[in-house]
Amino acid sequence: MSATQTNKIDITKAATSKINEVDFEKLSFGAVFTDHMLECDFTNGEWQTPVIKPYAPFLADPSMRVFHYGQAIFEGMKAYKDDNSDIWLFRPDENYNRFNKSAVRMAMPEVPENVFMDGLSQLLKIDQEWVKKGKGNAMYIRPFMIATGTGVIANPSDDYKFMIILSPVTSYYSGDVKVVIAEHFSRAANGGIGAAKAAGNYAAQFYPTTLANKEGFQQVIWTDDATHTKLEEAGTMNVFFRINDTLLTAPTSERILDGVTRKTLIDLAKSEGINVEVRSVLVSELVEAAENGSLKEIFGAGTAAVISPISGFSYKETYHELPKIENAMATQLKDKLTNIQNKLAEDTFGWTVKI
Amino acid sequence: MSATQTNKIDITKAATSKINEVDFEKLSFGAVFTDHMLECDFTNGEWQTPVIKPYAPFLADPSMRVFHYGQAIFEGMKAYKDDNSDIWLFRPDENYNRFNKSAVRMAMPEVPENVFMDGLSQLLKIDQEWVKKGKGNAMYIRPFMIATGTGVIANPSDDYKFMIILSPVTSYYSGDVKVVIAEHFSRAANGGIGAAKAAGNYAAQFYPTTLANKEGFQQVIWTDDATHTKLEEAGTMNVFFRINDTLLTAPTSERILDGVTRKTLIDLAKSEGINVEVRSVLVSELVEAAENGSLKEIFGAGTAAVISPISGFSYKETYHELPKIENAMATQLKDKLTNIQNKLAEDTFGWTVKI
Repeated sequence: MSATQTNKIDITKAATSKINEVDFEKLSFGAVFTDHMLECDFTNGEWQTPVIKPYAPFLADPSMRVFHYGQAIFEGMKAYKDDNSDIWLFRPDENYNRFNKSAVRMAMPEVPENVFMDGLSQLLKIDQEWVKKGKGNAMYIRPFMIATGTGVIANPSDDYKFMIILSPVTSYYSGDVKVVIAEHFSRAANGGIGAAKAAGNYAAQFYPTTLANKEGFQQVIWTDDATHTKLEEAGTMNVFFRINDTLLTAPTSERILDGVTRKTLIDLAKSEGINVEVRSVLVSELVEAAENGSLKEIFGAGTAAVISPISGFSYKETYHELPKIENAMATQLKDKLTNIQNKLAEDTFGWTVKI
Repeated sequence: MSATQTNKIDITKAATSKINEVDFEKLSFGAVFTDHMLECDFTNGEWQTPVIKPYAPFLADPSMRVFHYGQAIFEGMKAYKDDNSDIWLFRPDENYNRFNKSAVRMAMPEVPENVFMDGLSQLLKIDQEWVKKGKGNAMYIRPFMIATGTGVIANPSDDYKFMIILSPVTSYYSGDVKVVIAEHFSRAANGGIGAAKAAGNYAAQFYPTTLANKEGFQQVIWTDDATHTKLEEAGTMNVFFRINDTLLTAPTSERILDGVTRKTLIDLAKSEGINVEVRSVLVSELVEAAENGSLKEIFGAGTAAVISPISGFSYKETYHELPKIENAMATQLKDKLTNIQNKLAEDTFGWTVKI
């Protein structure tokens, strides 16, 4: 689909700022939004001029395609402010490229780089006061696209809306995360959309996760739908396993999201001299490692929580508690990564990009 | 989740009707909507008073959960007007029950029967002039529910909106439908949401269908994602195969929608003395039947098109054209079913319900 380049962004500033109403010490993840948002409509086969304007609801027709046929994709990114008040993005090209891969899989138009990247930079500059310094502080960035064409017929929409909204966040302790390994439910099919950051993938997980919650588990580790023998993702995150001193994670596939934090951790761990194996990890292997004591850690990896350590897992009604260990890889890697992201340590990888 | 019963419906009538602007001879499916819609919000853990009001857009927050995590379900139903101008629904309890099954699977609240059923009856009565008499004419009914809670965190929403919108339709000839059998893509996973009428299932099909379109095929016959050996659905419809004089269709499962037209056709065919087998149908079996001449018909079954005959299928680069036959079961069954639906033949099954 066409991706007309346009360099102009129409900007309308908010008359007043909401920033003084926000308690930045008590931020609930993804609940508070900044003063402005970016909006760009795709109509008549091309992207219109992007607009930055005050964050506000918009009029939605009840027959809008996104409500009926689920054409909706998103990304999760973060921006960080350094001690000089410069604002930095972390590997934004990875998110931009994945966004357009998701668009193709969902039969949606690709978003031009200048709309996505220049739009994001402009938006962050306008709302720069909302980006706070200090480790753990970040601006969570949510680019998304929805099908806005009307009519209840199951065909791809002709019209779309691309938006970027910003939500200030702080580091959070996810608490004691116990997980259950999926024996029946699954999040993705071969030949399906599991590798796309498509809205429908998330809603599909809510019910199985709710069932797990009722049993006292915070998340589900998803397995392959055909055999339920391979470990794939944890909740909405990629998942890593440490057996002895080797870090294991599944290869990306049609069923597994190509996570930016996942690929970053693989590189970071390797640079720390950690042995990393990217290969299918079997449930049976995990159970055996838990039983013989070689399983040291499990953690989720994603933009929102960065790294979320898992304290134990249940499989076939048996709960396996992980050992409490000193110098956990999860803690070390999270520390190194957030230092790079927050510009508190040198970025030798070239991951951080100043806006 | 709670399903508080309420019998009150707040009604606000449109000042003027759009009906004279509509050419009922040239209706495009699902594109025109009547003067009114039903809306009922779920907030603070309970369903509020349903409202019937003029069809119009509503304000949507950019962080509304449906845009980001795809909690959205729908139904497709039809209403018919008989010669006495009475309006009839076809097996509405099937749609109502399936809607709430979809709701459970997508971690959404079930809709109370009186909101769904009384709301629909009231809405149809108010817009009764839009329901036209005559075979093939119908009012397409689209009940749907979306997550309206705000905040970009991947948890089930606390707030929802249930709506019913109405679109007058006429019978349509779907043209020569050639299909390709999926060898790589799939529409549903074991343990997934394929049996729910969830928005995300539809968007997932658009890209593979677009690829099929480019090769000259109108639709895809979906196969099981694990082995691609079992025939499951055709496009957005259930699928039937006639081998010699036996009608075959796959059993419902987690991957296959429990279609109302599907179950109706099974009963109708049996009552006509047709041998019906509900069992897994293999791709290999279909190819063999095509090659030895025993494959007589393939057709899709769904509310929108009722029955959509398929003229041939492609598998592994080989196209198998179906024979042109007299007295096709597809034609006979469609005729019998639409006569019952339009109250032009006696309904001995008790499927039609007067509002």
